[in-house]
Amino acid sequence: MKATVIIAHPYPLSFNHAIFQAVCGSLKERSVFVYAHDLYREKFNPILTEDELGSDVSVDALVNQYSGELLESDLLIFIHPNWWGQPPAILKGYIDRIFRPPHCYDFPAGGEGGLPVGKLRGKCAIVLNTSNTAQEREENYFGDPLELIWKQCIFGFCGVDRFYRKNFSIVADSDEAQRIRWLHEAEALVDEALENIDN
Amino acid sequence: MKATVIIAHPYPLSFNHAIFQAVCGSLKERSVFVYAHDLYREKFNPILTEDELGSDVSVDALVNQYSGELLESDLLIFIHPNWWGQPPAILKGYIDRIFRPPHCYDFPAGGEGGLPVGKLRGKCAIVLNTSNTAQEREENYFGDPLELIWKQCIFGFCGVDRFYRKNFSIVADSDEAQRIRWLHEAEALVDEALENIDN
Repeated sequence: MKATVIIAHPYPLSFNHAIFQAVCGSLKERSVFVYAHDLYREKFNPILTEDELGSDVSVDALVNQYSGELLESDLLIFIHPNWWGQPPAILKGYIDRIFRPPHCYDFPAGGEGGLPVGKLRGKCAIVLNTSNTAQEREENYFGDPLELIWKQCIFGFCGVDRFYRKNFSIVADSDEAQRIRWLHEAEALVDEALENIDN
Repeated sequence: MKATVIIAHPYPLSFNHAIFQAVCGSLKERSVFVYAHDLYREKFNPILTEDELGSDVSVDALVNQYSGELLESDLLIFIHPNWWGQPPAILKGYIDRIFRPPHCYDFPAGGEGGLPVGKLRGKCAIVLNTSNTAQEREENYFGDPLELIWKQCIFGFCGVDRFYRKNFSIVADSDEAQRIRWLHEAEALVDEALENIDN
């Protein structure tokens, strides 16, 4: 079994990185092969080019490598803070560039009409977020757009229907004991997803 | 009167650019001073740094310039395609970096507790989007997260309550006559906003 694990946070000692380490460790203990990418550390270029507007294969080898890893992975895990109801720009650019035709979705042969076809069917996705907003305010005032973005716009569009998400808040107010409980919750979610893949 | 107009699209001959030209031209005809930024042309750096995680003034002069322009502007206009229910990464990074303390919002004096204070009160915002998704599918399947993102997460958070948005779709299927009608609609929306500012 294989997994892609992506993290986007500028501070290497962030709680996001603690989640990233816990999740990668947990996967490796369970003998899952992990493609792990820390986008800030790798200085990933998030700017989709004019050439990449079309549906041809990208000329950027890194884009093709990352798309290939997504396709090979059974489990797709994204870890990031909630910034303005969205991922940080560096991860938004990963989405713009890596979730592309012909790998992650494509247009039906024959041209005109019909919706794009999702090509990540059968995979399982997990999104782990952190925020400094109370859950009630996130849902009732902001409307929690991250849920729509990941579940419908990205994974729904690409044919992934097994979707798990957990938001950890309020991180700024949390103590060490709380953070340790949250890390266990993240690991438990990964275990749950792995069991569903096995079945 | 002053306006900030921001566009994010990799193709200089895109319909987004036609909207940008029409809106800037219309504002100048009405003697509005325009701060116009084509983020792709300017090669804007969208990566929020570790230093910028805090609430101090950024050390990047360009960030402070753009924040200052937002504060000086009566009208804030953003033009971009709908990519995965979100703006392109280069504009997401403008949001991450430019909408920051102490300019656009800030934390109440005295520290603990209480929500951040929006500092863009009294301004008027317009968002003009393009997409290749039918309006019905955008609203009913994807849930139109761009509406929540701009209206609640960004402008609501920063205290902007006069918000206008128009989504032009399906651009890929549109002919020249349709696009000219859409440009007139964009200009009419700007006029409507200007009248509300005058009152």
